[in-house]
Amino acid sequence: MKPVYLDNNATTRVDPAVLQAMLPLFRDQFANPSSAHALGASVSAAVRKARRQLQALIGAEFDDEITFTSGGTESDNAALLSALEAAPNRTEIVTSAVEHPAVLTLCAHLEKTRRVKVHRIPVDCRGRLDLDAYMAALTPQVAIVSIMWANNETGVIFPVARLAELAKEVGALFHTDAVQAVGKLPMDLKSTSIDMLSLSGHKLHGPKGIGALFVKRGVNFHSLIKGGHQEHNRRAGTENTPGIAGLGTAAELALKFMDDETTRVKSLRDRLEGGILQRIPGTCVTGDPLQRLPNTANISFEHVDSDGIPLLLSRIGIACSSGSACTSGSQEPSHVLSAMKTPHAAVRFSLARDNSEEDIDRVLEVMPAIVGKLRSFFGSGPGNPVYA
Amino acid sequence: MKPVYLDNNATTRVDPAVLQAMLPLFRDQFANPSSAHALGASVSAAVRKARRQLQALIGAEFDDEITFTSGGTESDNAALLSALEAAPNRTEIVTSAVEHPAVLTLCAHLEKTRRVKVHRIPVDCRGRLDLDAYMAALTPQVAIVSIMWANNETGVIFPVARLAELAKEVGALFHTDAVQAVGKLPMDLKSTSIDMLSLSGHKLHGPKGIGALFVKRGVNFHSLIKGGHQEHNRRAGTENTPGIAGLGTAAELALKFMDDETTRVKSLRDRLEGGILQRIPGTCVTGDPLQRLPNTANISFEHVDSDGIPLLLSRIGIACSSGSACTSGSQEPSHVLSAMKTPHAAVRFSLARDNSEEDIDRVLEVMPAIVGKLRSFFGSGPGNPVYA
Repeated sequence: MKPVYLDNNATTRVDPAVLQAMLPLFRDQFANPSSAHALGASVSAAVRKARRQLQALIGAEFDDEITFTSGGTESDNAALLSALEAAPNRTEIVTSAVEHPAVLTLCAHLEKTRRVKVHRIPVDCRGRLDLDAYMAALTPQVAIVSIMWANNETGVIFPVARLAELAKEVGALFHTDAVQAVGKLPMDLKSTSIDMLSLSGHKLHGPKGIGALFVKRGVNFHSLIKGGHQEHNRRAGTENTPGIAGLGTAAELALKFMDDETTRVKSLRDRLEGGILQRIPGTCVTGDPLQRLPNTANISFEHVDSDGIPLLLSRIGIACSSGSACTSGSQEPSHVLSAMKTPHAAVRFSLARDNSEEDIDRVLEVMPAIVGKLRSFFGSGPGNPVYA
Repeated sequence: MKPVYLDNNATTRVDPAVLQAMLPLFRDQFANPSSAHALGASVSAAVRKARRQLQALIGAEFDDEITFTSGGTESDNAALLSALEAAPNRTEIVTSAVEHPAVLTLCAHLEKTRRVKVHRIPVDCRGRLDLDAYMAALTPQVAIVSIMWANNETGVIFPVARLAELAKEVGALFHTDAVQAVGKLPMDLKSTSIDMLSLSGHKLHGPKGIGALFVKRGVNFHSLIKGGHQEHNRRAGTENTPGIAGLGTAAELALKFMDDETTRVKSLRDRLEGGILQRIPGTCVTGDPLQRLPNTANISFEHVDSDGIPLLLSRIGIACSSGSACTSGSQEPSHVLSAMKTPHAAVRFSLARDNSEEDIDRVLEVMPAIVGKLRSFFGSGPGNPVYA
């Protein structure tokens, strides 16, 4: 039976058109885009095209506001470290308690090694940011605010445009990790005060190993990786040209499919959530029901182990997650669910445009028995015979 | 006519077998290797396989000494910054005057922003390292020595095993940028005192956007990019799994072809050098004739502009370079040739296993007329009618 893949917030299937766009860069157009010869020139044209495709997706005013990186984590690191270097007199960072480890791990490191003060704004039980705490943390000591556009575990959307306006009032830069939002939500960065934005190719049906950092013109940027003059001196190293072309095509496809596919994916997600809540008692949807990504269902289940459901689903060819991929395998509740004080184990089903009604129906068909089986042995410890 | 590609030190053609190895990771095996479900497990097995393939190529003792990165530049940056963080009481770096910008640009930045003292060991007119200056610079203040295994412009090989022994005597770490050497020279790192080594996929017929950093077990390593737990906590960010599989296959092919192809490529290179020196007066080979990569010919030409030859060759479908790709287009002599006090313009022809005798013969056929044409107008300035 064909596997059912509902773990698209961990990574997505590369769109066949994306792979097609990459292949020439692996074959005849293999040259180094920095080379002066004719073979190099055709490759640098492909890089320029991809930059414009990405510009269109996020609504950047200028294509040179986009710097290609190796992915979302590098982009996040580069944004925060650049802001600290650009404003040596500002030594505080404002972020949220539910950011990706790419932001939180770096912040903890800066706190330890560089005496940077980090404000981790809490969220409520629905995963909504505490706006009073946010405003209280904003002072002229803040170098940068880094708040994600949408949460990877719950899909909760933060009001980044408004948060950016508030940051601007104290002269702080505003960065958003938009890895989960780009390609799923319409964006028009030129109409916002967002200074920097991170995105990743493999979350929008592009390849792994490529991402980008948007840096608004006028922002004083210091590169993380130093060396050659690539990417307007903002990111050294020979360009990952097949990855860049793939990301460009993925951006174009995301823009093209945005309206129709968002509606269709949302209706599949709602069918999944509604079906589970109707069929299985003791379940509820985690996260803000009003401001949520259209593709993400985070459902909590009373009286089951956190990893039990994904494990049993995996055995019958259904992929989902008990948290983010980065924390998979851990028995602890994720930092996101802890921050929301969610009392129960949760399962994340994350959909994409290649999912079908059949995928959802298959999950709905097997879930009641799986949850029933897990509940019948709940609390019986590591020797739980369900997993034998 | 088929283009003749003699710019393999800038980048190489992806081997078709490398692309074949990558394709499954773009298609069915697209999952996140950190995911706990069955789809993730098959991908993490592919990553483990690639790590062992790379281990075999460089002769590392353990496969966990290899960390995948986005390329040579990131690896170089990570190595140097880690060493400074690991030894806060050591504030000096020893490097050479002819390193890649990935090392030199970072060193200049550290000198400016962190008061790190940088020793740039000079080379002689053959590109050989000044060993007396090297030994004089080695003191207990040195955190790390970073000397390339082979130079990208001239192909000159430095005695890194011996240099590493000397560094060890003062307790400094020894890093080598081996981007140009890996896959061209046999290596057995476990029998050396080299602590860290950078390599890049696209210089050995692998893909762009992937590289690795070798870190010997026992070395105190601090990651450059912080976030999730990928790569044994040494490099955060979702793994570039197709790139990793491609690099693994490229490593396996490089090892397989090492002996026979090195001999064949060297004989093509010697035929090219000999042919040019014989046919064209006022030419000589740049760099140490005894310790040189088998694939690189750096030839200096009296009385021509530095970019003239590559430009005219490019117009008839022959790709070579006036220096490294990173400095292409600049009218200044490269920092490598300047350090060697080379008085004339030089052209780099860099070969690979996909070059043929016909490629070489075509270059030899056209070169005398091109050099003659350029020399007839030499010194006539920007309006030089040769380029019209």
